[in-house]
Amino acid sequence: MVRALWGRIADRAAPSGDDCAFVDVGEARLAISGDLSIEGTHFRLGWLALHEIGWRAAAASLSDLAAVAATPVGIMVGIGISPEWPSDSAAEVMEGAAAAAAAVDAVVLGGDIVRSENLVLDVTAIGRLASDPVERRGARVGDALYVTGRLGGPAAALAAWEAGREPESSARERFAHPEPRIAQATWLRDQGVHAMVDLSDGLLADAQHLAAASSVRCALDLAAVPLHPAAESPERALAGGEEYELLVAAPEGEAMPEAFGAAFDLPLTRVGRVEEGLGVEVRRDGAITHVISPFRQFG
Amino acid sequence: MVRALWGRIADRAAPSGDDCAFVDVGEARLAISGDLSIEGTHFRLGWLALHEIGWRAAAASLSDLAAVAATPVGIMVGIGISPEWPSDSAAEVMEGAAAAAAAVDAVVLGGDIVRSENLVLDVTAIGRLASDPVERRGARVGDALYVTGRLGGPAAALAAWEAGREPESSARERFAHPEPRIAQATWLRDQGVHAMVDLSDGLLADAQHLAAASSVRCALDLAAVPLHPAAESPERALAGGEEYELLVAAPEGEAMPEAFGAAFDLPLTRVGRVEEGLGVEVRRDGAITHVISPFRQFG
Repeated sequence: MVRALWGRIADRAAPSGDDCAFVDVGEARLAISGDLSIEGTHFRLGWLALHEIGWRAAAASLSDLAAVAATPVGIMVGIGISPEWPSDSAAEVMEGAAAAAAAVDAVVLGGDIVRSENLVLDVTAIGRLASDPVERRGARVGDALYVTGRLGGPAAALAAWEAGREPESSARERFAHPEPRIAQATWLRDQGVHAMVDLSDGLLADAQHLAAASSVRCALDLAAVPLHPAAESPERALAGGEEYELLVAAPEGEAMPEAFGAAFDLPLTRVGRVEEGLGVEVRRDGAITHVISPFRQFG
Repeated sequence: MVRALWGRIADRAAPSGDDCAFVDVGEARLAISGDLSIEGTHFRLGWLALHEIGWRAAAASLSDLAAVAATPVGIMVGIGISPEWPSDSAAEVMEGAAAAAAAVDAVVLGGDIVRSENLVLDVTAIGRLASDPVERRGARVGDALYVTGRLGGPAAALAAWEAGREPESSARERFAHPEPRIAQATWLRDQGVHAMVDLSDGLLADAQHLAAASSVRCALDLAAVPLHPAAESPERALAGGEEYELLVAAPEGEAMPEAFGAAFDLPLTRVGRVEEGLGVEVRRDGAITHVISPFRQFG
């Protein structure tokens, strides 16, 4: 939706095409990402504690830095909150955001608290790039597609809450405390991977983003998608967002997933390959079960 | 309100004490400022057009860069908007923000549009510092206090809207299109001024911020406050926020205001002096009419 705007302000804008903006400052290059989280749209108050809402908002913004292999420096946290809430509510949100930042060696640089009926969080994450960023647009025909971690936990937690049940605890934890894959992204960059994107919208939607940016087709193998123990089905895991894992395009081979697993106690799983064409195709046992046209945005 | 939080997250935070965060990147130093604007708190839809709401939000964030004499690089714009609005509404908000950025030679670096019942805007402004920032804490006993421009326009516009009237057009323009004093701030820095703050909360409240940060007292002369033609009274002009002018502490003298006026076609007016003590005193004809204790925050 944002992309459609750039044409209107083309002479006053310099968007990168990734979720981060890149700013050159002297010799250094910064990656900056902003994320708005709004009560009712991105979270509901009954589901999570305030410090979890703060963690999630910060993690979402920091995950955008992971997607380009930037090293976080700090976050700016804006909180809109009703004055009718208990007086330490904003502090609890801020503590959660600060904890998510500390988990990736970043600090809270500044903040703003304003009055709002709905709870609103804005987190801007600032990171440094040691070299050129890994972008979405670098995928090449013949690359394999890999994902970090196991998918479907957040979707299972959401499904439980929406059905009025309390989620299974490990699925709830995946939703409440996503871990931006900062160290993993730097490691992958050092392996020379061609393209990355973080799974904020889900594997299916973010594969479409990577395909569009790289002008290729992503062919995904449904049976290969690594599932969280609480995941309901590969289809739900494919469609569910809020994962904050990474989708990576890199040369085919077994050495990288093995070394990754040894380094991080986290799987790196081959889920498909990059082909000529456009859009996303999902295959089960060789048959195409799902096609996303490049002209119709998923989601 | 934000300040009270820092103690809770002291080991994970690095706030600057100004409205900007400062980040060193290699040889360069960045100033970064975030501002949340929320419908009902910071603006009402009936008062302003969408592009004016975008301009104001961007100008508020860019004004924080002016306060530390940083040069803007770009802005990140997050918009929360209802999907029931006309489809080009977000574009209109974004165009206003882009225009405010372009007016100070900055661009829109990136953005995020999400679903929200209330209109929410978040603008993060990124600037570069050519030297040490001018901060709030540098005011010295014996300094004169100066303000840029003429005060009371935004307060007059707000008073008219709240009384159900359309504001006088020049007062409305001051509210709808505030101009961050970027060029003026750089000029003032080059003159060696000791401290600055932008008047986002109003002269009275921001003089208190400057006094607290510098551990001094600001003595303001009510009769000296330069008034916008539509201003209702010096008292209203003193208390009204949303000015985005600068309050400056600098050595006493007539040369600087004269040179400033010649350079910018804008007055720089002496409104008081920095004294030993704490807090703010407002004097009319030598008598103290208003005292703000350092222990009671104005506003």
